[in-house]
Amino acid sequence: MLIVADNIQITNRLIQEALDKMDAGPISALAKKCEDAGADAIDINPGPLTRQGEDKMAFLVETIQDAVGVPLLLDTSNPSAMKAGLMACRDKATVNGFSLEPVKVERILPLAKEYDCKIIGFLLHPDGRVPRDAEERLDLAARLFALFEKTGIEPERLIIDPIIVPLMWEDGARQAKEVLDAIRMLPDLLGFPVKTLAGLSNLTTGRGSKQKKRLVEEAFLSMLAAAGLDMALVDITHSNTVKFSKACDMILGSKIFSWEEVS
Amino acid sequence: MLIVADNIQITNRLIQEALDKMDAGPISALAKKCEDAGADAIDINPGPLTRQGEDKMAFLVETIQDAVGVPLLLDTSNPSAMKAGLMACRDKATVNGFSLEPVKVERILPLAKEYDCKIIGFLLHPDGRVPRDAEERLDLAARLFALFEKTGIEPERLIIDPIIVPLMWEDGARQAKEVLDAIRMLPDLLGFPVKTLAGLSNLTTGRGSKQKKRLVEEAFLSMLAAAGLDMALVDITHSNTVKFSKACDMILGSKIFSWEEVS
Repeated sequence: MLIVADNIQITNRLIQEALDKMDAGPISALAKKCEDAGADAIDINPGPLTRQGEDKMAFLVETIQDAVGVPLLLDTSNPSAMKAGLMACRDKATVNGFSLEPVKVERILPLAKEYDCKIIGFLLHPDGRVPRDAEERLDLAARLFALFEKTGIEPERLIIDPIIVPLMWEDGARQAKEVLDAIRMLPDLLGFPVKTLAGLSNLTTGRGSKQKKRLVEEAFLSMLAAAGLDMALVDITHSNTVKFSKACDMILGSKIFSWEEVS
Repeated sequence: MLIVADNIQITNRLIQEALDKMDAGPISALAKKCEDAGADAIDINPGPLTRQGEDKMAFLVETIQDAVGVPLLLDTSNPSAMKAGLMACRDKATVNGFSLEPVKVERILPLAKEYDCKIIGFLLHPDGRVPRDAEERLDLAARLFALFEKTGIEPERLIIDPIIVPLMWEDGARQAKEVLDAIRMLPDLLGFPVKTLAGLSNLTTGRGSKQKKRLVEEAFLSMLAAAGLDMALVDITHSNTVKFSKACDMILGSKIFSWEEVS
């Protein structure tokens, strides 16, 4: 399982302030910290970028690709900022992402074709509603894949996000199981080993002790790994969570097991 | 998921010495410690009991049932000691267990009928070999269930142990996945929600740092829970492992989620 750091996001005040001032220092430093902590990729999530979106996304991409060597995911709902970000990328980035929402189909999905990128497809209804169960997720995945195929990009470039919801939601526990089932069933449904990515931090949104949240994160990460998840979007400062991903690789991997590699 | 303590076992020198001297004190104390640590049941594993097996098993049962209120699993391959243990039980115990091995079919399985007990069925070949994959496990389960049905005990009294093997075995990682698959498929195969129990400590047998082993235990426990495991046989002194089982219950449970219950 690959670990994608979700730390470069606008809800982090440090990032917000640095982005307002176009101050590269704190952003480079955090990106480097993510790489050093073992991130296999970094998600750049500056929100919808309502003002100077293009400049800001390009600035973020330039700053971060100068600081680290890992692949980037560009995570904004603003199509022109997404395009500016893709133009600024030296290497191919992953577009994060599109859904059945018309504006995303019309303005984000074509960018993946134009820049020959991987793209995340969110299993959400066209109006943004979260699916209720695995069946709805599979139905959305089929519709998403049909749209994706029309772009003419290789199927392997689609990465599906089954949408983890907070456990504190009324149906949160049931939804967690439905997400696992959907991940397990997606390759059969689409007829190829489609890649999946899920945002782990969503699970523990809400009030509660940090220690308990981490425990729940670690347990669910293990379940996701066993279900076949390829990429987990996590807070990389939760170092034990990263260790768990390595333990899961050992348990599920095909290479010869060595206790020394779980570190 | 229910947690069964595997701590009362002959490989623990304290238990071995106390059993040699028929000294109830240390055994009562450890049993109480298991119950206090949150064990839902306690496995009594005195090994094959080659000398004074009947007296010793009866002594263990009497000692432990006087100390704690949780259900007991009697875990010996010695049929007459098993019978003595069952006779000493005030409440119904679980027989742990039988397999396709002829002596177990002929002398252990009938005890479950005679004492109207639940019984664990190990997915092992008649000669004791561990199955290679999920398919062999399912085949063994079908054969085990056929034998079990002949006893005339209700199907719900069968609990299947899919046999976790050490990760350090050459095919340990592959086997871990096969165990998960077998647990997931067993209810469909047998046509009813057959209960399952698995011994987690087996996974981390061998040399290696304690910390890494615990991490791997916790990750695999989470995977087992998601696969539908009903009972985990664990070292109850691994307190974080017990906390993980509660976190898994929260993630997978149908009750309203509360962060406060993960403790």
